[in-house]
Amino acid sequence: SINSCMEEWEALSNEYRSLEKLHQLYHAKLEEVNSLQQKCTKGISHQRYRLNIIKNSLRRLEKNMSESSQGDSERNALLQTDLIRRKAQLYEMENILPKPSGRYLKIILGGINVSILDKNEKFRYKDEYEKFKLVMSLLALFISLFNCLTNVRTMDVVHMFLLVWYYCTLTIRESILKVNGSRMKGWWRAHHFISTVLAGVMLIWPVGECYYAFRTQFMAFNVYISFVQYLQFMYQRGCLYRLKCLGQSHNMDITVEGFQSWMWRGLSFLLPFLFIGYAWEFYHAYTLYYLASHPSADWHVGTLSMLFLVLFLGNSLTTAATIPQKIKE
Amino acid sequence: SINSCMEEWEALSNEYRSLEKLHQLYHAKLEEVNSLQQKCTKGISHQRYRLNIIKNSLRRLEKNMSESSQGDSERNALLQTDLIRRKAQLYEMENILPKPSGRYLKIILGGINVSILDKNEKFRYKDEYEKFKLVMSLLALFISLFNCLTNVRTMDVVHMFLLVWYYCTLTIRESILKVNGSRMKGWWRAHHFISTVLAGVMLIWPVGECYYAFRTQFMAFNVYISFVQYLQFMYQRGCLYRLKCLGQSHNMDITVEGFQSWMWRGLSFLLPFLFIGYAWEFYHAYTLYYLASHPSADWHVGTLSMLFLVLFLGNSLTTAATIPQKIKE
Ligand SMILES: CC(C)(COP(=O)(O)OP(=O)(O)OC[C@H]1O[C@@H](n2cnc3c(N)ncnc32)[C@H](O)[C@@H]1OP(=O)(O)O)[C@@H](O)C(=O)NCCC(=O)NCCS
Ligand SMILES: CC(C)(COP(=O)(O)OP(=O)(O)OC[C@H]1O[C@@H](n2cnc3c(N)ncnc32)[C@H](O)[C@@H]1OP(=O)(O)O)[C@@H](O)C(=O)NCCC(=O)NCCS
Repeated sequence: SINSCMEEWEALSNEYRSLEKLHQLYHAKLEEVNSLQQKCTKGISHQRYRLNIIKNSLRRLEKNMSESSQGDSERNALLQTDLIRRKAQLYEMENILPKPSGRYLKIILGGINVSILDKNEKFRYKDEYEKFKLVMSLLALFISLFNCLTNVRTMDVVHMFLLVWYYCTLTIRESILKVNGSRMKGWWRAHHFISTVLAGVMLIWPVGECYYAFRTQFMAFNVYISFVQYLQFMYQRGCLYRLKCLGQSHNMDITVEGFQSWMWRGLSFLLPFLFIGYAWEFYHAYTLYYLASHPSADWHVGTLSMLFLVLFLGNSLTTAATIPQKIKE
Repeated sequence: SINSCMEEWEALSNEYRSLEKLHQLYHAKLEEVNSLQQKCTKGISHQRYRLNIIKNSLRRLEKNMSESSQGDSERNALLQTDLIRRKAQLYEMENILPKPSGRYLKIILGGINVSILDKNEKFRYKDEYEKFKLVMSLLALFISLFNCLTNVRTMDVVHMFLLVWYYCTLTIRESILKVNGSRMKGWWRAHHFISTVLAGVMLIWPVGECYYAFRTQFMAFNVYISFVQYLQFMYQRGCLYRLKCLGQSHNMDITVEGFQSWMWRGLSFLLPFLFIGYAWEFYHAYTLYYLASHPSADWHVGTLSMLFLVLFLGNSLTTAATIPQKIKE
């Protein structure tokens, strides 16, 4: 009856009043946090500024140091390590402070804040990114297998549209990862920009003799790349989970040495496949370079040849460069 | 000298210690805020759940009310308004709580939190969105003017690429606006999805007789649309700023009546231009429908015709529907 409804309502209203109080408390704390956030950010950049001044004057001192005492140079060395440690501490502090987005994200998303202020959330975000890549490369695998075996123009178009969209999305997600402190090398993001353009040019390449001369080899390459991306996923994900375990001090299942040996095994398994892929990119560049002189060739052929060459060079140099870097670590 | 560096370092270290304390405080408060946030969100959804139960039992009561007393139906009516007011209060509370993204944003950006928890920031974000549209439509104006006067295939391609990218970016930004409580109608977001596809199909349409039969009219349409978008920008931005002033109670420059009269003047200036644009969309659909039976016509022609028809219908119905809705307000 209406009376029981009224009673229900009264009970609910009481609950509402306590919710209201909670909400007011929340609002107050939120503003406090915002102002603390600004103070911390300012404090950190002030520290950075003055650290740099000290560093510069130390550098100037060092130059005129040759004649000065042993003690001075020892103090200098001590101060230098202090400076480095302080920088690391500031970096650590920044982990839970919001960071501004880069120019690309600002254009795409506008001035929205994409910082993740929680370690576990950061991990989850990266994990989700790896999974997204996996799902998409499986999808690409099926489509390119289908395209290898058949020759339907619509499916080619769908495939290329998917690649444009996929690489475009990757660049956005990777920029977000970058804001959140990933040490991903600049080239991999550039790689995905270039791949977006490449897929775009493939998309508008008018079908004709040249197109069909290149199509088979390109489709086979796509199948191969999807497979390599699967291997890469297994490796990157392994690294991610093992690094997370390493970060949790109470977890003793894994040691730094254990991680390193796992990483090297994974890497030495993966690298040959990667370099075969890069060789293939070079081969595409070469094939297209010859096709470009064909009478029916459009501007697309030469452009694609250039893009594949750039991908080949960037990928092989960057991947090659990670090996000595990892040995040093 | 090294001594002065040491002194500098000492002074800076003192500052660092207080920064460290501030940072610890911040960290603690941040976690507090997060847990309060979760509690509030839970409380709100619990309120919603029980409000719905009460509402349903009231509805059931109403049906059997005919024979019951006058007093009961009065109490019922009072309770109904209470329910509505409570819903508005809960909605107000949610303004400073993070909201989950929709499926589209989750796919593009991953599980990042795009809520803006500050009224001024929300305003700034919307303002920036309008400015972004303005800059892009000016750019599109120049390119389409250029394309009207010349006929360079590369520029056509650049134009279409720009449109694909632009509409794609708009859908992302609008989804973010939606999460942050914009009352933008679903159609406008759908409109930008469809426009993305439309520009994509234009992009891959092989040049030929049909393409050139349609090109001039399409380029002129683009010039016109850029101009209309400029008018629309002036209107939307005027609404935005005036609504902001209305929201600040200490600002007496503007009244609700003043806003309404301004809005109606703006709208009645804008609407004829909009409907001319929609008529043009219908005309495109019609032209393409006839071109589709041309012997050299590809699938692109029919598809484009369909897409323009959908745009025409959706735009005119949605825009027409806003007029009675605004009169009621
Ligand atoms: C060579 C390679 C295996 C090294 O991986 P790695 O051991 O993770 O390398 P690093 O230690 O330098 O990684 C640093 C960071 O960059 C990220 N990263 C490395 N390569 C990446 C790639 N290709 N794409 C995205 N992120 C990458 C890592 O995940 C790590 O992120 P984190 O800071 O958030 O933890 C890896 O770069 C790779 O797979 N490259 C080949 C990619 C390729 O060529 N693709 C085209 C298909 S042939
Ligand atoms: C008809 C029109 C002028 C009404 O605008 P309005 O007075 O702002 O309409 P409403 O009051 O319903 O707006 C509600 C919300 O939707 C937003 N909105 C309305 N139309 C929008 C559009 N076309 N694109 C994006 N957002 C829009 C408003 O900014 C407002 O946002 P807010 O809740 O964040 O303040 C507007 O919808 C319009 O310009 N439509 C034409 C768009 C068009 O046809 N473009 C294609 C080129 S011809």
